[in-house]
Amino acid sequence: MTAEVPSWLKLKRRVRFSDTDAAGVVHFQHILGWCHQAWEESLEGYGLAAGTIFPGSRQDDPTIALPIVHCEAVFQAPLQLGDVIDIVLEPQRIDLSCFEVKSRFKLGEQQVAQGCLRHVAIHATSRSRCQLPSELERWLEASCLGQINPL
Amino acid sequence: MTAEVPSWLKLKRRVRFSDTDAAGVVHFQHILGWCHQAWEESLEGYGLAAGTIFPGSRQDDPTIALPIVHCEAVFQAPLQLGDVIDIVLEPQRIDLSCFEVKSRFKLGEQQVAQGCLRHVAIHATSRSRCQLPSELERWLEASCLGQINPL
Amino acid sequence: MTAEVPSWLKLKRRVRFSDTDAAGVVHFQHILGWCHQAWEESLEGYGLAAGTIFPGSRQDDPTIALPIVHCEAVFQAPLQLGDVIDIVLEPQRIDLSCFEVKSRFKLGEQQVAQGCLRHVAIHATSRSRCQLPSELERWLEASCLGQINPL
Amino acid sequence: MTAEVPSWLKLKRRVRFSDTDAAGVVHFQHILGWCHQAWEESLEGYGLAAGTIFPGSRQDDPTIALPIVHCEAVFQAPLQLGDVIDIVLEPQRIDLSCFEVKSRFKLGEQQVAQGCLRHVAIHATSRSRCQLPSELERWLEASCLGQINPL
Repeated sequence: MTAEVPSWLKLKRRVRFSDTDAAGVVHFQHILGWCHQAWEESLEGYGLAAGTIFPGSRQDDPTIALPIVHCEAVFQAPLQLGDVIDIVLEPQRIDLSCFEVKSRFKLGEQQVAQGCLRHVAIHATSRSRCQLPSELERWLEASCLGQINPL
Repeated sequence: MTAEVPSWLKLKRRVRFSDTDAAGVVHFQHILGWCHQAWEESLEGYGLAAGTIFPGSRQDDPTIALPIVHCEAVFQAPLQLGDVIDIVLEPQRIDLSCFEVKSRFKLGEQQVAQGCLRHVAIHATSRSRCQLPSELERWLEASCLGQINPL
Repeated sequence: MTAEVPSWLKLKRRVRFSDTDAAGVVHFQHILGWCHQAWEESLEGYGLAAGTIFPGSRQDDPTIALPIVHCEAVFQAPLQLGDVIDIVLEPQRIDLSCFEVKSRFKLGEQQVAQGCLRHVAIHATSRSRCQLPSELERWLEASCLGQINPL
Repeated sequence: MTAEVPSWLKLKRRVRFSDTDAAGVVHFQHILGWCHQAWEESLEGYGLAAGTIFPGSRQDDPTIALPIVHCEAVFQAPLQLGDVIDIVLEPQRIDLSCFEVKSRFKLGEQQVAQGCLRHVAIHATSRSRCQLPSELERWLEASCLGQINPL
């Protein structure tokens, strides 16, 4: 029996004109951007302020940074202007200082793309590896509850 | 007495990490992108499918294109990651083949930026000037009803 | 008699696939990005390291920031993938804490677009207005020598 | 004995301000864009006009499209504004209708990132798989000559 996907892991997005290129479909690179933006939106949906996790907000910058060390995407069908895409996130802890978030993009019942961003936690100034921030740990735990086949 | 702003001209947007640059605030160029995206969202909110106005959708491309001939923006205060921005659009017809859309960006009561995109209508293949598409005319008319000081 | 344009104000750029949109031409927003990038390249061509003027380099961030307060662009002809664009910059000091840089984009003899970015100098931490950094002053002075009709 | 890398597979790029984010380093997504732009530059360096391979040029659009079906990147060290990056491309044919291009990004002697884009050839209108365009085949063959460990 599959557990229900928490609400903060289910998002929607509409393809905009600036997402397209001269081939008349979504330019591949934007899908990677959507992955990051969907993750930001998910953190907010769960209740974490953006400034808790990312630098550049009106709060002090967090002491732990979460740079991406690996990203990947698969493009299964062309996306067109005006398409409304359902996004489902599948976060997974890799170890104490590393996690990844897979994003599945669906148009109706068809999966059209998926992407995955892997992050590590580092001290923002020394850039040495450290444990994931506790707020992110909470989001990860709440998000993974009941996941049977996390990837 | 000021008329009520129609619902499809009032939008919201949250600043994302990819909107920022190394100065720790929103990179100027993204505000221009927001203007276009807000306009697309407004057309949808009014009831026009994106493919009626823009190429690249699952419909046939429209026969009239609406290239931007002028754009402008003013930046009044820095925007930060996580800020939730209220956007109000003020469209205005310039002549039979030309219109512009001004976007005001507000953070609470403070205006933080405004941008303006001016479009002309051309036949997509011959690129000769023509009248605005009738669907866009309807959106313009409905949007300008009751505007007293359009700019 | 017109003075020669200094070499660091003359640049070239080729239109890339990611610059295009589903209308098959360059998306308007990228032209604004080109203006900033051309300015960065011009500073380098004159002999200023990027980190002297912008945050985010391997040097300490400069104490003076130069946010854009206004930008504007005119689009006179469509730009296509593969086009090689000549760019000529026309910097102008506005006052002790403000300057702007106009970029003219030409395809052969035809001007296809122009853009203009206006910057003010502020202390990076207090964000209060201040004089332009002396390195930028030098670039401005060297660039404006002999300009008869600066705009 | 390793063969010499052909000149059109060796490129340079400087990190611009718009490549950075509020963490003060290059935003991950731009590296994927660099991979595509480096590939475009390589085709030109070999002698192929952009319009032979990509839609959106002043020529007729090619009848064969080359959408990306998979992309991947590894980020090994932060990139900063002003960094001059050496890029080496390693193209590889996968089968008659599929190829990929790996890009290695080096700062001096240190590899700081690598990315890989995998493309398939399809008829632009029917979107059915087909053989790679002959011009691209020539670039692939010339690029792979003498490669001993292609990946």
